[in-house]
Amino acid sequence: MHAIGVDIGGTKIAAGVVDEDGTILAKTRRDTSPDDVAGIDQAIAEVYLELSGSYEVGAVGVAAAGFVSADRSSVLFAPNIAWRDYPLRQRVQAILQDDVMIVVENDANAAGWAEFQFGAARDVDDMLMLTVGTGLGGAIVSNGTLVRGAWGVAAEIGHMRVVPGGHYCGCGHEGCWEQYASGSALVRDAQATLIIQPERAARLLELAGDEVTKLTGPHVTQAAQEGDPLAVELLAELGRWLGEGAASATALLDPALIVVGGGVADAGDLLLAPARKAFDEQLSGRGHRPEAAIVVASMRNDAGMVGAADLARR
Amino acid sequence: MHAIGVDIGGTKIAAGVVDEDGTILAKTRRDTSPDDVAGIDQAIAEVYLELSGSYEVGAVGVAAAGFVSADRSSVLFAPNIAWRDYPLRQRVQAILQDDVMIVVENDANAAGWAEFQFGAARDVDDMLMLTVGTGLGGAIVSNGTLVRGAWGVAAEIGHMRVVPGGHYCGCGHEGCWEQYASGSALVRDAQATLIIQPERAARLLELAGDEVTKLTGPHVTQAAQEGDPLAVELLAELGRWLGEGAASATALLDPALIVVGGGVADAGDLLLAPARKAFDEQLSGRGHRPEAAIVVASMRNDAGMVGAADLARR
Amino acid sequence: MHAIGVDIGGTKIAAGVVDEDGTILAKTRRDTSPDDVAGIDQAIAEVYLELSGSYEVGAVGVAAAGFVSADRSSVLFAPNIAWRDYPLRQRVQAILQDDVMIVVENDANAAGWAEFQFGAARDVDDMLMLTVGTGLGGAIVSNGTLVRGAWGVAAEIGHMRVVPGGHYCGCGHEGCWEQYASGSALVRDAQATLIIQPERAARLLELAGDEVTKLTGPHVTQAAQEGDPLAVELLAELGRWLGEGAASATALLDPALIVVGGGVADAGDLLLAPARKAFDEQLSGRGHRPEAAIVVASMRNDAGMVGAADLARR
Amino acid sequence: MHAIGVDIGGTKIAAGVVDEDGTILAKTRRDTSPDDVAGIDQAIAEVYLELSGSYEVGAVGVAAAGFVSADRSSVLFAPNIAWRDYPLRQRVQAILQDDVMIVVENDANAAGWAEFQFGAARDVDDMLMLTVGTGLGGAIVSNGTLVRGAWGVAAEIGHMRVVPGGHYCGCGHEGCWEQYASGSALVRDAQATLIIQPERAARLLELAGDEVTKLTGPHVTQAAQEGDPLAVELLAELGRWLGEGAASATALLDPALIVVGGGVADAGDLLLAPARKAFDEQLSGRGHRPEAAIVVASMRNDAGMVGAADLARR
Repeated sequence: MHAIGVDIGGTKIAAGVVDEDGTILAKTRRDTSPDDVAGIDQAIAEVYLELSGSYEVGAVGVAAAGFVSADRSSVLFAPNIAWRDYPLRQRVQAILQDDVMIVVENDANAAGWAEFQFGAARDVDDMLMLTVGTGLGGAIVSNGTLVRGAWGVAAEIGHMRVVPGGHYCGCGHEGCWEQYASGSALVRDAQATLIIQPERAARLLELAGDEVTKLTGPHVTQAAQEGDPLAVELLAELGRWLGEGAASATALLDPALIVVGGGVADAGDLLLAPARKAFDEQLSGRGHRPEAAIVVASMRNDAGMVGAADLARR
Repeated sequence: MHAIGVDIGGTKIAAGVVDEDGTILAKTRRDTSPDDVAGIDQAIAEVYLELSGSYEVGAVGVAAAGFVSADRSSVLFAPNIAWRDYPLRQRVQAILQDDVMIVVENDANAAGWAEFQFGAARDVDDMLMLTVGTGLGGAIVSNGTLVRGAWGVAAEIGHMRVVPGGHYCGCGHEGCWEQYASGSALVRDAQATLIIQPERAARLLELAGDEVTKLTGPHVTQAAQEGDPLAVELLAELGRWLGEGAASATALLDPALIVVGGGVADAGDLLLAPARKAFDEQLSGRGHRPEAAIVVASMRNDAGMVGAADLARR
Repeated sequence: MHAIGVDIGGTKIAAGVVDEDGTILAKTRRDTSPDDVAGIDQAIAEVYLELSGSYEVGAVGVAAAGFVSADRSSVLFAPNIAWRDYPLRQRVQAILQDDVMIVVENDANAAGWAEFQFGAARDVDDMLMLTVGTGLGGAIVSNGTLVRGAWGVAAEIGHMRVVPGGHYCGCGHEGCWEQYASGSALVRDAQATLIIQPERAARLLELAGDEVTKLTGPHVTQAAQEGDPLAVELLAELGRWLGEGAASATALLDPALIVVGGGVADAGDLLLAPARKAFDEQLSGRGHRPEAAIVVASMRNDAGMVGAADLARR
Repeated sequence: MHAIGVDIGGTKIAAGVVDEDGTILAKTRRDTSPDDVAGIDQAIAEVYLELSGSYEVGAVGVAAAGFVSADRSSVLFAPNIAWRDYPLRQRVQAILQDDVMIVVENDANAAGWAEFQFGAARDVDDMLMLTVGTGLGGAIVSNGTLVRGAWGVAAEIGHMRVVPGGHYCGCGHEGCWEQYASGSALVRDAQATLIIQPERAARLLELAGDEVTKLTGPHVTQAAQEGDPLAVELLAELGRWLGEGAASATALLDPALIVVGGGVADAGDLLLAPARKAFDEQLSGRGHRPEAAIVVASMRNDAGMVGAADLARR
C-alpha cells in the first residue's frame, strides 16, 4: 500500500507518495505561513488531492514539529506554528469531505522511524536517534515499536537535564542537553571564544565575514575540516556532550544503535569520534554488556516525509 | 496458568506459586550463598520440585539482581552474586532433566512489572518505576511492554548521570543519579551533617545510639516523622533529586505514572511531596502536556516473585 | 585633610568634599556622556575647581566602574564607558595645569573601602564586601589593607565560577557567580517561572503590569515582603547562591565580616537569612573556627564617593 | 638575625637554623608521635636548645598542619595531630623557662612564604601558591603580606567549592577543589579507569604490581613521562581542574604569579601545560588585563622550615 507523507515546515509543506520500501514515487510542495493554520489545512488537502490523482494511497502521515496528541489526530502545542490543541486530522478531513486515514506524527519521531525502517538502523530492533540541528531532537524505538509515551510527547531528549544550574534553555529550564549538544550551542561557544580568545578564532571570524553575529554552524564544520584547531576543539566539545548524554539515555534504554542526524552530523567523525570516546568513558556497566555503535544517519531531508507515510500506513 | 516466581537474594531464595491475578498461592524458601552458584541452581530446582508437586505450573520466572541476557536465559553479570556469563536456565534444566520454561529477569524489572500488572500502575500503559532502596533501580513500561533494551540491560536508571563531576559511584563513574536519590545517599548526607552541624543532628545521633556509623535510612525516616527539622530536610533533598531526575526521564519516556518503591518510599509524603514539587518545576513542556502523577508502590517484598512469574508465563 | 571623591556613572558624575570621618561636607554633579571621555575629564576638572574653591582639599579620588591600573592613574578597560588604556589622572591634571594628587579606584573597591572605614565593617580588619546589584561586584580588605591585586583587578568576585558548564555570562565564560547571585539573575529566574508555572506567578505578573519583560528586582522584593511564596522562594534561592559562594570565598580569605550591599540587599533578611543558612552549611572547617557574620551594608549611594576620597588621601 | 624553623610532621619534626637569605645553616630532627602533644612540645624545646647552642637565634617559627590562631600562638585544630585549641607557644616556653619568640604558622602558609621570599615568587608582590600533594593546600600573598585572614585560617584553597553536588570531601562537604586537583584525586580517577576501561590501563596496572589499590601518584607521573596515553590524560585532567580553579581564585586575588608545588608538580609540563590552557580559557577579563604566569615551585621539602623561620623573625 502506498501512503502520502507530508512534512510541515515553517514556510512550506513538502509531500510525497511513499511505497512500502520507503521509496518516494512523486513529490510536490506548497508555500504556507506559520500563523495561518487554516491555510496549512488547505495546503495539506491540496497536496493530497494532487498526489492521490496519480497514485492510489491508503493513508496520509503528517510530520509536524510539536507535541502531538496520543491518538495522533491533533497538535497540542507547536513552538513555531500557531497550533494550540488543534484538531488537524478533523480539519483536513472536513475540507476533503473524505475519511481518508490521516495520522499526525511528531516530525522527529517520523524522521527517526524512517531511519529505523529504511536507513541506518534498519537491522536493529532498539534504536536511539539524535537529531543535532538548531536544537537537539530525537526518537526512540524499543523492541521494534516507536516509543510515543502516554501522551505522545516522549523522546523530547533535548530537554533531559545534563547540568544542574546549567545554561538557560528556551523551554524555561536550566541545563537542558540541547544547550550543550546542538548547532546553537556550537555557534554560541564559537562566538564566546571570539570574545575571549580572538587570537585563536581568526579563521572562524574570516569565514563569518568578520561579523561575529554572522557565524554559523557550517562555518565551524568547514574550518574544522580544514584543520583549524579551535573549530576541531569546538566540535569535539559538542561531541563529548553528545556522547555523555547518550550514555545517560543508554542507561535507561539500552539501544543497539545510536543514530546521529541533523545538520551538525555533516561534520562526520570530527563530531562522532569524540562522541564515541565520551560514550565509552561514561557508559555504565561497560565491559559487562555489549555496546551500542554510534553512526551517522543515512537518510536526509526526506526522512520526515517517508517516516510519516510509513507510520500512517501501519 | 499458574507460574512459579523465584526471587534470588544474597543469602536466600524465596519462591511462590502465582496465579494469573498475581495472587501467591503457596510459598517456600531456601538459604543460599552468593559465592556458590551451583548451590543456587540446586535451590531453584528444589523449590520448583516442591511447589510443582502441589500445583500445576507452566513456567518459572527467576528474578535476579544483575544484567540478564536478551534471550532471558543467562546472567551476564551480577554485582553481588558470582554469576559471570552464567547460563542459569540451562543449568537448572539440566538438574531437573526437564524442559520446563525458565525465564530469567532482572529483579527490578520483575518488581516493576508486578506493579504494572497488579499494583499501583495497573490502569496505565506507560509507567516509570523508581525503586529507592540502598541504590536506585527501576523499570520502564512503554505501551504495555516492558522495555528490556537490545541486550536486556535497559532501565539501569540509577546510572543516568545527573551531576557532571559529581559523586563517585561504585560503577566507576561520577554523578550517577543513585548517588543522590537512594538510601545510601540519605545516610551519607545525614552523616556529613553530623560532622559539620552536630547541633542540628542531636535526634539522629540519639537514634543511632550515639554512633555515627550506625545511622540508617529508617532512623532518618523515623526522625522526620517525629518532625525533626534536619531529617525532614534530608528527605526533602532526596525527594528533590528524585523529582528532578524523574523529569529528565520523563523527557525521554513520557510515562502516565511514576511509581516510587523501595524502603525509602516508606517515608511517604515526606519524600513524595518534595519529589512532586521538583518534578513540576523541572518538567519540560509543562502546561502544554498532561503530567504524570507520582505515587507510592502498592506491592511490597513479593513484587519480584510475582512479576517474574507473570513475565515467565507470557 | 579633606579630599574630594568623584563617582563616575554612565550619564553623570557626582562629587563631594569628604572629611577624615567620612562625612560629606559639600556635593555637586555634572551630566556626562559615556562615549565622551574628554567630556568626563572636563567634568572632573570642573567639580574639582568648584569644590576646592570653598574647601582646602589634599587629594582627589575618582571611583570608576572598570579595570584600574596598578598605579591607580589609568583605566585599562571599562565595560560601559569608552575608556581603553586611558590615562585619566594625566588628562585631568593637564586640564587643571595643577599636580593635585588624583587617584583612580575601581568603584566597587571604593564603596567597599567606605564600608570598611566608616560603615558596617568599621570594627574589623578583614572584610568581604558583596555588592548585589545588576551584577555582583565586591571588595576585599585583608589585615586593614584593600586587596587590589598585582594589576589592580582583584575582587572581581562575580566572575568566580560556581557552576562548571553553568549559565553564560556577558564576560564570555560560563557559570560565573553573578549569573546566580545578582538582580539580573533574580529577574531572569522570575521570568522563567512566569513561563513554566504561571499559576504561581500571578502577583509578580500583576506588579509588572502584566508584561513579563517589565518585571524588575524591586517587584520581586515587594512581592516577597507581602508574603508572596514564589517571590520569597526566588530571593531565598539567590540568598542560597550568595551564601554558598561566600563560603568558597571565605575558604580563601577568612574575613571577619561579610557585608552585603547593592539594591537587592534592600530585601534584608528575605535575602540574608537564606544566605546565612547556606554559608553555615557550606563553610569549610565549621566548628573549628570562628564564623564570619553576614550583615547588610550601612552606607548607600555615596559610598563610592566617600571611599574614593578616603583612599586618595592615604 | 638568624631564626630557627621547625616543621612538624606526623611522626617526626625537622628543624634548622635559617639566615636572612633563607639559607639553612644547620639542621636536626626528632621522632615524635601525633597523639603525644606533650612529646612534641618537648621535641621542639630540644631542637631549640641543640641549635641555639651553636647559633645565635632571635626567634622560632613552627610550621604546623592545622588551623592556627590569629595571634600565631596556638593550634585551633589539626586533622592529623591531637591538637585542639592547643597553646603551643606557651607550652614550649614553659619547658624552656625562656621567653624566646615562638611563632606558630600553618605549614602551607610557611612553605608559600618561603617560595615568596626566596623561591619562584621572589620577584613579585602578589602570589598564589598551590600545593598539590595528597590534598590541595596553598598560600596567598597580597601586596607583600601573607593573607592570614581574621582568624588565621585563610588560604584553605582546597575547600573552595568547584562543583555543586560534586565529590564528597573529608571535610564533610561536596565538590571541594582538592577532590579534583590533588594526588588523591589522581589516584582515584586512575583506579576508576582500571575498572571501567582496563584495556587502557595496562601500564598503570603493571607499575602498581597488578594491584589496583597499590597504585600511587608517582606511578601515574612515571607512566605519563613514558608516554602512556591514559596517564597523560589523567594528569591533563588534573591540570585542567587546577587551571580552572586558579582562574576563579584569580578573579578574587589577581596574583602576578601562580606557583605550583607539592609532589604532583614533579610531573612538570604534563601538569602545567593543561593547567595554563585551562587558566587562559577561564580567566575573566582576559585581553583587558595582564595574566599571571603559572610556574613550578623552586623550593622543596625545606620550604616549610625556611618560611616559618622567616615569618618568625619579622
